[in-house]
Amino acid sequence: MNSRRDFLQKLTASFVILNLPGQVSAATGGFTTQTYDGPALRIAIMGLGNYGTRVAEAMQSCKKAKVVGVISGTPAKITEWQRKYNIPTSNCYNYENFDDIKNNPEIDAVYVITPNALHHNQVLRVAKAGKHVICEKPMGLNAKECQEMIDACKKANVKLLVGYRMHFEPNTLDVINRRNQGEFGRILSFEGGTGFPIGDPTQWRLNKALAGGGSLMDVGIYAINGARYMVGQEPVWVTAQETKTNPAKFKEGVDETLQFQLGFPNGALASCVSSYSISLDRFLLNGEKGFAELRPAFGYGPIKARTNKEELSFPHVMHQTTQMDDMAGIILGNKRPLVPVDGEEGLKDLKIIDAIYLAVKTGKKVPLSL
Amino acid sequence: MNSRRDFLQKLTASFVILNLPGQVSAATGGFTTQTYDGPALRIAIMGLGNYGTRVAEAMQSCKKAKVVGVISGTPAKITEWQRKYNIPTSNCYNYENFDDIKNNPEIDAVYVITPNALHHNQVLRVAKAGKHVICEKPMGLNAKECQEMIDACKKANVKLLVGYRMHFEPNTLDVINRRNQGEFGRILSFEGGTGFPIGDPTQWRLNKALAGGGSLMDVGIYAINGARYMVGQEPVWVTAQETKTNPAKFKEGVDETLQFQLGFPNGALASCVSSYSISLDRFLLNGEKGFAELRPAFGYGPIKARTNKEELSFPHVMHQTTQMDDMAGIILGNKRPLVPVDGEEGLKDLKIIDAIYLAVKTGKKVPLSL
Repeated sequence: MNSRRDFLQKLTASFVILNLPGQVSAATGGFTTQTYDGPALRIAIMGLGNYGTRVAEAMQSCKKAKVVGVISGTPAKITEWQRKYNIPTSNCYNYENFDDIKNNPEIDAVYVITPNALHHNQVLRVAKAGKHVICEKPMGLNAKECQEMIDACKKANVKLLVGYRMHFEPNTLDVINRRNQGEFGRILSFEGGTGFPIGDPTQWRLNKALAGGGSLMDVGIYAINGARYMVGQEPVWVTAQETKTNPAKFKEGVDETLQFQLGFPNGALASCVSSYSISLDRFLLNGEKGFAELRPAFGYGPIKARTNKEELSFPHVMHQTTQMDDMAGIILGNKRPLVPVDGEEGLKDLKIIDAIYLAVKTGKKVPLSL
Repeated sequence: MNSRRDFLQKLTASFVILNLPGQVSAATGGFTTQTYDGPALRIAIMGLGNYGTRVAEAMQSCKKAKVVGVISGTPAKITEWQRKYNIPTSNCYNYENFDDIKNNPEIDAVYVITPNALHHNQVLRVAKAGKHVICEKPMGLNAKECQEMIDACKKANVKLLVGYRMHFEPNTLDVINRRNQGEFGRILSFEGGTGFPIGDPTQWRLNKALAGGGSLMDVGIYAINGARYMVGQEPVWVTAQETKTNPAKFKEGVDETLQFQLGFPNGALASCVSSYSISLDRFLLNGEKGFAELRPAFGYGPIKARTNKEELSFPHVMHQTTQMDDMAGIILGNKRPLVPVDGEEGLKDLKIIDAIYLAVKTGKKVPLSL
């Protein structure tokens, strides 16, 4: 029924778990966080749905992150996870009592993997409980929520990261690194297509109250974020156009297909399409001296990259495995990733999403200040 | 010095001239004009520059079209062409006296291959001389000029075609044919990128007075036209954004890079980039049941096409060879191509170009009525 999962899974034709001895981050070619040798990050997963399940499974291959607790409203799921991951009952919570996590010294951080509309309140509660937070993207429903989440975590003196798994994908990082070294010259344009034909019309992703929007909140954000990390600058304006071919399935406030265009300070342009009807998974970066293409660019399976000169060849690792190992280094070891994954990074994308929805409504170019 | 030619030529890695006995159009898989068995079309080329030279060379492989005359302002070029193509002096004209072509029974049609700004007046004069006209794209500088050209040819009872060579390219036509047969299902979106880094800043293409614009007039028109023949509908609105990184080279009124987006009646969207700075040559058509990609999509060399199911495999023929043979059938045999190449077709693209320049200026969505 969940064709999003099916679609993204189809891209996972095969994968290799790199099981090198020694330090974390070898798998990403050293592009991400500096080596982290500290203790493992002990994580409670909040929300045991499809994606939470995928994260937990990927974390079985982690060296520096471990699933030690769960928060769920479904007792049967909790029992299943306890058995599967050997989780003590003392580390299991529901949505009523998870504030008590503040008294649990066995949990370092909570990874919030719930419907978008719940992130804001849940992150605020986790922060108040004094635990570090990893929040799945989109960080919140809008920039205002994100700012409040940042403020709450700052006040509680906990770290706040956003689940940007592509920021740990080695081929993606190789492209960013090459751009930083000037291989493509002055950056001129970016094309980003992110979309898949969504299935079950009753799922929360198609419910405005829970999703806060449509394809843009779910997959368009990959193109927004991708435009920023591929171009390597912050956009200064955005325009956008919407189309809806199936209003019965994509109700008021749930976008089916959006096109948006970003302008960058040096004149570079990004041209993006986000869709719940069209299969799209490609980033193209053009510079004066060369280009880089990621195709697929954001699916769960192997990311394939090439430049005008060569195919890139970092082997596939499960994105969530690398992400969680590297996030352990960021949270516990104060390591810095090549591309930020903090609350400020999440806020920037939501500022752009706010502006895209405004541009659709007004039909006008909206200035951005990130 | 002419990096446009160099760029497009680079795409011509190799080619095969199909030399099948018998009927014209076998090379295009029968998708274009119906078989034409009449006499050859006797053509005078007006404008002996790079592209005129390319057309004449490609026509040496034509079965149904023949270069029999020239119009040029450069006597040395005329002499060279006379020798090369065995053209009698009685079929040679300059820009002052070419109205006399009306008294020449050896010429059926004139192919106008001059700078864009000259097309309007020259086509009017050819029509008045009672000869059929093939006009290189863009047909004119704006919709008003195109309408006057159509009216003049109608009044003179001569045919008016526009040099849309891709309308005769077999892989392109195969994709259109598959779409017509429903292979891709309901059409959802189109992405089109057409661009190349233009060289010599003194060339006429970068002179507003001669080119009437910049990249949009020259290569963006391929994306406009491509969006229409790939989607198979006429767009109902357009939005557009411009960026200029090199105002010294790309002066007032000469666009360097433009993004534009088209909306279609069924909700399908087109997202396009046109550039004189970026190398772009790709069309992607997405439907509910499948996709088709042309990559390259408009260069002079082999067009490569694939669908979600297979690679397409029509061998390369020089586009201008097929175009001119098929145009003979259209002009002399009243044959109909799969995709129109008449003045009305050229007018539609200029209506969109007018609207794109307006959308850039106003920042607003511009409705289209084609």
